[in-house]
Amino acid sequence: MAAKKNKLRVFSLGGLQEIGKNMTVFEFGNDIIIVDCGVAFPEDDMLGIDLVIPDFSYLQKNKNKLRAVILTHGHEDHIGSIPYFLRDFDVPICGTKLTLGLVETKLKEHNLTQVTKICMSAGETAEFGVFKVEFIHTTHSIADSVALAISTPVGMVVHSGDFKVDYTPIHGDAIDLQRFAELGRAGVLLFLCESTNVEQKGYTMSEKTVGAIFEEIFQQSHHQRIMVATFSSNIHRIQQIVNSAVNHKRKVALAGRSMVNVVRTADELGYLNIPEHVLIDISEIKSFRDQDLVIITTGSQGEPMAALSRMAVSEHKQVEIKPSDKIIISASPIPGNEKTITKVINSLMSKGAEVIYEGLMEVHVSGHAKQEEIKLLHALIRPKFLMPIHGEYRHLKQHKDLAVSIGMKKENIFVMGIGDVLELTEDAAKINGSAQSGQVLVDGLGVGDVGNIVLRDRKHLSQDGLMIVVVSVDKETGSIIGGPDIISRGFVYVRESENLMEEARSVVRAALSDSDGYSEWSYLKSLIKDTLKEFLWQKTKRSPMILPIIMEI
Amino acid sequence: MAAKKNKLRVFSLGGLQEIGKNMTVFEFGNDIIIVDCGVAFPEDDMLGIDLVIPDFSYLQKNKNKLRAVILTHGHEDHIGSIPYFLRDFDVPICGTKLTLGLVETKLKEHNLTQVTKICMSAGETAEFGVFKVEFIHTTHSIADSVALAISTPVGMVVHSGDFKVDYTPIHGDAIDLQRFAELGRAGVLLFLCESTNVEQKGYTMSEKTVGAIFEEIFQQSHHQRIMVATFSSNIHRIQQIVNSAVNHKRKVALAGRSMVNVVRTADELGYLNIPEHVLIDISEIKSFRDQDLVIITTGSQGEPMAALSRMAVSEHKQVEIKPSDKIIISASPIPGNEKTITKVINSLMSKGAEVIYEGLMEVHVSGHAKQEEIKLLHALIRPKFLMPIHGEYRHLKQHKDLAVSIGMKKENIFVMGIGDVLELTEDAAKINGSAQSGQVLVDGLGVGDVGNIVLRDRKHLSQDGLMIVVVSVDKETGSIIGGPDIISRGFVYVRESENLMEEARSVVRAALSDSDGYSEWSYLKSLIKDTLKEFLWQKTKRSPMILPIIMEI
Repeated sequence: MAAKKNKLRVFSLGGLQEIGKNMTVFEFGNDIIIVDCGVAFPEDDMLGIDLVIPDFSYLQKNKNKLRAVILTHGHEDHIGSIPYFLRDFDVPICGTKLTLGLVETKLKEHNLTQVTKICMSAGETAEFGVFKVEFIHTTHSIADSVALAISTPVGMVVHSGDFKVDYTPIHGDAIDLQRFAELGRAGVLLFLCESTNVEQKGYTMSEKTVGAIFEEIFQQSHHQRIMVATFSSNIHRIQQIVNSAVNHKRKVALAGRSMVNVVRTADELGYLNIPEHVLIDISEIKSFRDQDLVIITTGSQGEPMAALSRMAVSEHKQVEIKPSDKIIISASPIPGNEKTITKVINSLMSKGAEVIYEGLMEVHVSGHAKQEEIKLLHALIRPKFLMPIHGEYRHLKQHKDLAVSIGMKKENIFVMGIGDVLELTEDAAKINGSAQSGQVLVDGLGVGDVGNIVLRDRKHLSQDGLMIVVVSVDKETGSIIGGPDIISRGFVYVRESENLMEEARSVVRAALSDSDGYSEWSYLKSLIKDTLKEFLWQKTKRSPMILPIIMEI
Repeated sequence: MAAKKNKLRVFSLGGLQEIGKNMTVFEFGNDIIIVDCGVAFPEDDMLGIDLVIPDFSYLQKNKNKLRAVILTHGHEDHIGSIPYFLRDFDVPICGTKLTLGLVETKLKEHNLTQVTKICMSAGETAEFGVFKVEFIHTTHSIADSVALAISTPVGMVVHSGDFKVDYTPIHGDAIDLQRFAELGRAGVLLFLCESTNVEQKGYTMSEKTVGAIFEEIFQQSHHQRIMVATFSSNIHRIQQIVNSAVNHKRKVALAGRSMVNVVRTADELGYLNIPEHVLIDISEIKSFRDQDLVIITTGSQGEPMAALSRMAVSEHKQVEIKPSDKIIISASPIPGNEKTITKVINSLMSKGAEVIYEGLMEVHVSGHAKQEEIKLLHALIRPKFLMPIHGEYRHLKQHKDLAVSIGMKKENIFVMGIGDVLELTEDAAKINGSAQSGQVLVDGLGVGDVGNIVLRDRKHLSQDGLMIVVVSVDKETGSIIGGPDIISRGFVYVRESENLMEEARSVVRAALSDSDGYSEWSYLKSLIKDTLKEFLWQKTKRSPMILPIIMEI
């Protein structure tokens, strides 16, 4: 334990070998700082789950050491767990203005009002225990994103946040390559670098290229209403749509709750430049001609409840899709969303609308660095050790290979899992032990009350439904005085399968009457289960969940 | 009705505005022929469903008119419904040798032995009632694929099947462009053309290019065991893997039931050329050194039960993944499978294996024509009317735009849905009425017994689980003599939520005692449902299915 005192411990509670819920912990002696606190979206087999958040157990046990949570930018996978985190911890939240603005909206929704916030600008440094944290301006698909230079007793650590190298961003300066170069020159012990697009060759194009495409589309849409679906957090994209709207004298209406919220926050904080009288309420669109309108909407991922999806199935109150609409999907499908978005595109097209999506025109660019940009940062920072972050195993591994290809030593690169602890001194690093980590599932108000057993049951129910068998037995004699009654849900359409249900009842009745009067409940239950399971499998090749219920009267 | 006698009616029972279950019907007077009879895979919201097949109702009502089912090639989305179709219909199945060989395997599994099969070669013509059907050699990702030239009383109809324009196929001749040109010269009334890759610019590369990449990979894998995952039906791909194996003096083992079956069938029928002593049984691999082995396996889509997925989670009996393995995923993810395949790639990599997939190297080419190839066929065939087939709405619409771009008249192109009937005379075509069509769901042995109500229940159960409330009432007095007992599954982890369950019981008990003794069952049931629903929503923001059960004793 004594040795640990002089060592920096770095580990992730989320974002390694998984996508989302990014959260990295830096511990030295009695001080802990946390970088980011994100959510992940549930995997396909997490039925009914709303969100996935990190396991905070390690931090619970080391509560007295916590100095701050530092946020690199305002995306959900970096800030989404903050409301859950703050239920248990009273720690300052430190970030840039827009990031804190977006956090604020969340905190209000969760009725969290007593939170200490530290607002920082790029170039500034804050001190938390032994750590000095400098904010470095970067470019990403949300404004006000930063990388961090964390000065520790054993050396300088750089955390990239999420970034791309954009020389012509829409708002503010280009990424601060100078500062990365200075840090590299002075010596960087450890670089934690994001890996999202590390499998992709070349450079990510500048956000500005999308604006040029928008201009082209607007010019060719004389009598059409234009709609653009994009992420509400993509302030730069929204700015460019607004710019084209202004150029072409169109009004802008917003559809979707998060679009309205984020635009309001960004506008208030000065991250959007919308001339007066351009923005109209969605309820006013009926007063304008098609050629005088642009609607910016949520739903670029085909999320069933988002505005665009509701328009596609004619369930949106204010917007009805018309053959004269030109709809731009200004986003890429996040892996797993391909089919939902395709469904929305098909519906929109079958209503006669023209739909423009990636592949037809370059209406989207990524916010993440590709291989050449990642190499550039490596070349400027020249770290002694590398910890690839933000990616599945394939991404982290590819990042390692990339670093090796530009001259880094294999043994200085650490492809880790969540919980794995990287221990660093001034000249050495090794993985040593692990911190408790995992996935905590959020379902409605429940945090962590849905575990593997519940999910296994949901899976079973979803595949074959259930059959309930109710039997009443006399408390005294043990003889059966009611039932067996059988109820099923999600198994077969009962009205068309009356024979099957009647047969099932007979089979159970026969089995019960063969059993010697009163027996152990557990025996009766197994008997019912096994008999029915066998019968149903023979008849249908399906295995519904069977729930025997014995009422003692 | 009299007018119909002189008209050709063309409609699809599957494959329009949907992917899969391709099936097209041609009707003239008293004759019907069917082209293809495929399955579709269930959509994400079809919980527990194994397969989707077409609705055969229209054919049931016109049984006496059926002359033949003609198959263009042996993929599941073209032949998969045959066993279900043949339960109700006694019609000859007509196809090429390999296609019928693959159908035969299916029929055996379904114990269907009395089936009339008509084996055709490309270039041959068969007569079915008024229709004369000529088989035309094409190239696709399965051997022995054909297009059809269907001579009808109102003119020539060409059905493309699935195709690409491959000048250097692995087996047999290039696609028979000459014949398409002749047909075009003589006059084609209607062209039904596939649309799978119509959104993609350019040409699909020849299958042969993949072989060159395999050679390159084999040359660089001196001490590694090589594994290749691909579709079992992709005989050409398998041939190329075998070729490289032979070149490099490696033995070939097969993993996965369908891989073993298809290779056996293709080998027996002469569609594979595997030198003696090259193929070994998977159980023999232990006797060979890594550098002397190639394993060809199923699982290229990350299907959880396929061989590669089982290897990835160390559950395959004969094959254990080693860091010295080089694994090639020689396939693209079918939309919707991106996440499952990525999971398998991550698992394989985290076992230390080297994994090569599309994007890293060109280890796969599509079997479907891209824009330039589709234009080529159009230019040769020069049809009067066009019916784009095999695609979602976006594909059919894009196909229409493509045809217009090369000079076709908009009004001569029919973007249709399943069931829509295209009626043709010698010089005119229009959509006129519809035939019954839809999706029939297969779950285990049940065909069509799972409908919307069952699926809705499965969905509900999968999201929030269920709560069962059992109450016994005295038949005579109506008073409650047992319960309420509460059982839940898939809702919360009961052991950790004992208080919640106890409270729920109290709430129901209170509501029941407030109700005036014996009431209508339906009233009691609603009372229990409403009380509990409200209580649980307040406490958890979840809505499990609530099943009140009242036992009368």
